[in-house]
Amino acid sequence: MASPLKSWLSIPPRSPFSIANIPFGIITHAKSPDPHTAVAIGEYALDLDIFTAQNGFSGLSIIQPHQTVFSSPTLNDFAALGKPMHSAVRKYIQSVFLESTPFPKVLKDNKKLQEEALIPLKDVKNHVPMQIGDYTDFYAGLNHAYNVGVMFRGPANALQPNYKHLPVGYHGRASSVVVSGTPIRRPNGQILENPAAEKKVPVFSKCKKLDIELELGAFLCKGNEMGHNVPLSEAEDYIFGLVLLNDWSARDIQAWEYVPLGPFNAKNFASTISPWVVLTEALEPFKTSGMANDVETLPYLQEGQAKNFYDINLQVDLTTGSGKSSTIGKVSATNLLFSFHQMLAHHSIGGCPMNVGDLLGSGTISGKEVNERGALLEQTDNGKNPISVDGEKRSFLEDGDSVTLRGYCGDQDGGLVGFGDCEGTILEAVQLKF
Amino acid sequence: MASPLKSWLSIPPRSPFSIANIPFGIITHAKSPDPHTAVAIGEYALDLDIFTAQNGFSGLSIIQPHQTVFSSPTLNDFAALGKPMHSAVRKYIQSVFLESTPFPKVLKDNKKLQEEALIPLKDVKNHVPMQIGDYTDFYAGLNHAYNVGVMFRGPANALQPNYKHLPVGYHGRASSVVVSGTPIRRPNGQILENPAAEKKVPVFSKCKKLDIELELGAFLCKGNEMGHNVPLSEAEDYIFGLVLLNDWSARDIQAWEYVPLGPFNAKNFASTISPWVVLTEALEPFKTSGMANDVETLPYLQEGQAKNFYDINLQVDLTTGSGKSSTIGKVSATNLLFSFHQMLAHHSIGGCPMNVGDLLGSGTISGKEVNERGALLEQTDNGKNPISVDGEKRSFLEDGDSVTLRGYCGDQDGGLVGFGDCEGTILEAVQLKF
Repeated sequence: MASPLKSWLSIPPRSPFSIANIPFGIITHAKSPDPHTAVAIGEYALDLDIFTAQNGFSGLSIIQPHQTVFSSPTLNDFAALGKPMHSAVRKYIQSVFLESTPFPKVLKDNKKLQEEALIPLKDVKNHVPMQIGDYTDFYAGLNHAYNVGVMFRGPANALQPNYKHLPVGYHGRASSVVVSGTPIRRPNGQILENPAAEKKVPVFSKCKKLDIELELGAFLCKGNEMGHNVPLSEAEDYIFGLVLLNDWSARDIQAWEYVPLGPFNAKNFASTISPWVVLTEALEPFKTSGMANDVETLPYLQEGQAKNFYDINLQVDLTTGSGKSSTIGKVSATNLLFSFHQMLAHHSIGGCPMNVGDLLGSGTISGKEVNERGALLEQTDNGKNPISVDGEKRSFLEDGDSVTLRGYCGDQDGGLVGFGDCEGTILEAVQLKF
Repeated sequence: MASPLKSWLSIPPRSPFSIANIPFGIITHAKSPDPHTAVAIGEYALDLDIFTAQNGFSGLSIIQPHQTVFSSPTLNDFAALGKPMHSAVRKYIQSVFLESTPFPKVLKDNKKLQEEALIPLKDVKNHVPMQIGDYTDFYAGLNHAYNVGVMFRGPANALQPNYKHLPVGYHGRASSVVVSGTPIRRPNGQILENPAAEKKVPVFSKCKKLDIELELGAFLCKGNEMGHNVPLSEAEDYIFGLVLLNDWSARDIQAWEYVPLGPFNAKNFASTISPWVVLTEALEPFKTSGMANDVETLPYLQEGQAKNFYDINLQVDLTTGSGKSSTIGKVSATNLLFSFHQMLAHHSIGGCPMNVGDLLGSGTISGKEVNERGALLEQTDNGKNPISVDGEKRSFLEDGDSVTLRGYCGDQDGGLVGFGDCEGTILEAVQLKF
């Protein structure tokens, strides 16, 4: 973008929270211990509960009857107001921060409110931003599905016959979705140590193949009536915004349990999301095409010329317990075969009721190169070829390892639209109580 | 049971809601349009909101500080009070209805409160009794798993190697759990018409193999800390009570979509539960053993001599749109390889956080005989051998069919402990919006 928006607030040029972004989250801080809404801008959270109480929305009359949504402990009430309202609020907040703001008395010339409502991000605690009714994880990263398929079934049968005809997905566990910074406990479970043995008897063990999955998540802001579908042409209205998602995976537990009904304990111990929901409007300039699909899908999944994918630069950083650190993967979020719009159209095609706050995961996003792969399973060929983290070898995650997903769109000139860190550090497995 | 409890209230001898039961539910009725708590007894619901307001709990001091739970729109708050409180409330309500009640002024001699608080069940609307955070469906009916396995893989490979070592399960869709009486819309979806064809291209169709699954459901009344497990020895404290569960299934959609991540749209369009939660205490006299497991499970799943299964007589009735009606299946709920206690211990073994209001499904319960099978898929051998419904043939469900699950323990002498109907009627598929 050629002409960036300039703010009176000092925003570092590499901040993911430029004035072009204005992502929403749920925070607490020392002076405000009840979770409530904020937006991130530069190195600050603008506390919308305080902002509202001090008449910050004096220039935006349409939000005024609904201002209690900003005191709510989740974004669900705000999300349910619908996308025209999200847009109005985002644009108003942008305008308040503009160098040439038409509302200088609101914040620019109001030092008292600046001191009260602009909380340094380092002093803010983030919370899961939405009450998640149901969490669904898809598998739309074709390169990932192919890489994993080759590993377990060989290149001829890598992808199942259904793979390109529908966005394969499964229901995940909503209760274990946690926000960035939450420590992740290594799971215990059943593992088959020797899959080649004729007699298949599992052992009880801590997970020895703990992995990451680099994904995008989409939160919904609208529901459909049970028994009716969300048509692809209306899907955009349902998508509130995006987060980064690390769908931690216990590969050894998964391998033993997942036939025939899918992954269960291999996934339900934790999934981490980034704390700030980036509204679809902020991502609009970065919309593009996804991967080409060489089968003709059924009409309810046909997007035509629509560009419903996002050119988000994704990155995985790993820091070991001993302090070694490397970026272990970089990939574009365009490496998806199906868009969130298509996932939603498919999810609801049989009449499944979707609700405000539902979370959809994209599936692991991988490129074609080894260092573009979004899971250690793929990067290390199921542990056989360890990667180097600044000289320290890793097949899968060790206790004390910290994994951070990062993602941003755009460039310094236009202002970055990014997600902030999606981090989790591995804790040792618990000693089990029987 | 030799000496039944006698009530001053006239309770039909075949009522599932004898004084030995006292199940809890959420109701509305003409005079009280906001959902709130009731118990079922005989042909009445005792409205606990009205009962509380009229000092009905005057004889039970320990509930008095918590009485607002009965005004809540779900049972979650009551459930969270814990099992000693559930027991105290249930026993107190039983005592109020006893012929020789120690509290005659509360209800027996209080015609005014009887008229206000005892609502005929026919005038009551039931609602989903709990706010379900997550719904998990297991597959613990060994006969069902075997029958289905034989159908698709032959007898030698009918059961997967993991089947007897762990309760196989998958995450279901919480948002589409509905209460008995809710019409069920036939889903649309992708179907592979000719699975044997080399080129596998699906068509878009309404489901042609719509099926039932006869299951038990268990609601939880306690949660665990994320990262820690619920040991089997403590599982009883977590199980609030049971309901009947019909996990409607679209077999043709399922066959195409379910590899490799499990059932998705084949299940998420609807699951029906019976309206009254039968507390575990009411089921205690009917505890028994389940099916013998011929493998030695890992210690965290070993129940020893504990009897954690319930001898519930289950029945499936089908009434066609043209009015023909038959009981198409009868089976005991003891036909399960794993108990809810074991399911919970397994579900949480990797640290998955369980919450009050979570629903666990048992999996389809089938006996060995054809008329003991809990799904049409099994009864008709995937549609090949239609059953007769009073002379009308059925391979799978037709539009207008009504399916009712029923279940009870005990006998007339002791008073039945039953669930009430779990019913759903099939509506035609919608014309799709693209």
